[in-house]
Amino acid sequence: MIVGLGPGPADWMTPEASAAIEAANDIVGYDPYVKRLVLRTDQRVHASDNRVEMDRARLALKLAADGRDVAVVSGGDPGVFAMAAAVFEAIADDPQWSKLDIAVVPGVTAMQAAAARLGAPLGHDFCAISLSDNLKPWTIIERRLRAAADGDFVIALYNPASKARPTRITQAFDLLRALKASTTPVAFARAIGRADEKLTLTTLGEADISLVDMATLVIIGSSETRFIPRDDARPWMLTPRAYGVSR
Amino acid sequence: MIVGLGPGPADWMTPEASAAIEAANDIVGYDPYVKRLVLRTDQRVHASDNRVEMDRARLALKLAADGRDVAVVSGGDPGVFAMAAAVFEAIADDPQWSKLDIAVVPGVTAMQAAAARLGAPLGHDFCAISLSDNLKPWTIIERRLRAAADGDFVIALYNPASKARPTRITQAFDLLRALKASTTPVAFARAIGRADEKLTLTTLGEADISLVDMATLVIIGSSETRFIPRDDARPWMLTPRAYGVSR
Repeated sequence: MIVGLGPGPADWMTPEASAAIEAANDIVGYDPYVKRLVLRTDQRVHASDNRVEMDRARLALKLAADGRDVAVVSGGDPGVFAMAAAVFEAIADDPQWSKLDIAVVPGVTAMQAAAARLGAPLGHDFCAISLSDNLKPWTIIERRLRAAADGDFVIALYNPASKARPTRITQAFDLLRALKASTTPVAFARAIGRADEKLTLTTLGEADISLVDMATLVIIGSSETRFIPRDDARPWMLTPRAYGVSR
Repeated sequence: MIVGLGPGPADWMTPEASAAIEAANDIVGYDPYVKRLVLRTDQRVHASDNRVEMDRARLALKLAADGRDVAVVSGGDPGVFAMAAAVFEAIADDPQWSKLDIAVVPGVTAMQAAAARLGAPLGHDFCAISLSDNLKPWTIIERRLRAAADGDFVIALYNPASKARPTRITQAFDLLRALKASTTPVAFARAIGRADEKLTLTTLGEADISLVDMATLVIIGSSETRFIPRDDARPWMLTPRAYGVSR
């Protein structure tokens, strides 16, 4: 089972995910995700560092081939910039594993948790782009950012920064600032659902990108996205369902 | 509370969503979503037809302003082509409602459920586009389809067809067929998680779009998306994390 744990809190984890963890003999995953779980002493834990997704995927498949019931865990949704792709890449590379009984358990992903806190920023057509160029050339990321601006999509940026790639978020904002209005609403949603959750509302022109780290999900509005002011509270962020229609 | 019920089965509904329904005096929503819920006799139900999202949003806000604890329910994630945008549009139109205590409860949306069944088709950058032109001009939908092809995104199409708009899916496929390889993997994921669930794997060139109805989520691959064959089982659909890299 390739299991999505959601963004953090237990109440964002589906009953299907909880049942899959309960049923597993072996739990395989990135250490901080495994640490979230309350496990039994008879369950074996195989926690590993980040950036070793393929090793983790192969270990899980090997355990399953040995007859173990295995849960590979991801934060968020395993299908969105997470472990599902790594596991199926391993299967594509070694067809013996295509005989295994595999299922994916979906989960709430970071952009949905961020959107829920913000109002309805993804209320209309949107795209999700990972800024990590560990496995893809930066040129395709630039091409996608340009296309996202051309299509006037709301843009959710995953993996926006890391110690290894401190300049990528700067390059992405420079590119988008040349293509979109400086007044475009922007939100930085950091560690949503966790104790250190932090939301920052700003605009494309004024955004302080030094606030963005690897735990931050960035949402950049379309030309229709707006803030709705509130007294004594953070504005709501809304992308209306109607487009280019005077209301 | 604006509550996402997930794609259908109770085990895809988060504990937070269940608790929000439990806590509500009034449940407001599209009739088929409300019917999924097991409610108490003291809970009032306000079920309505489709296409009256704004009426439903205003009713919910009025009940909340009267001091009721209200749950506005959506299938899937309320933030993705669902009720959250309608509620915040109503608030933007009438600032008196911005004083209300409102929260959004995210949920698993159709493309995630479809992706989970298919393997990992959303394993890399993707976009979500609603083909409904009830509230937006068809020209912006065409612009977004073009941009999605230019950016080589995986494309998830929501609301692909209805009795009122039988030709939109044909137009969308004609447009994409002119821009993307005919061998591009395509999946039609119908009623995922429900009793009549049906998955169809095909290609952009060979897809029989008469199979697509309003309950279908369409996923169209990027240039990297592939099928992984299995003996005696439906192939897996994978968009690998690496791009343009020989493996």
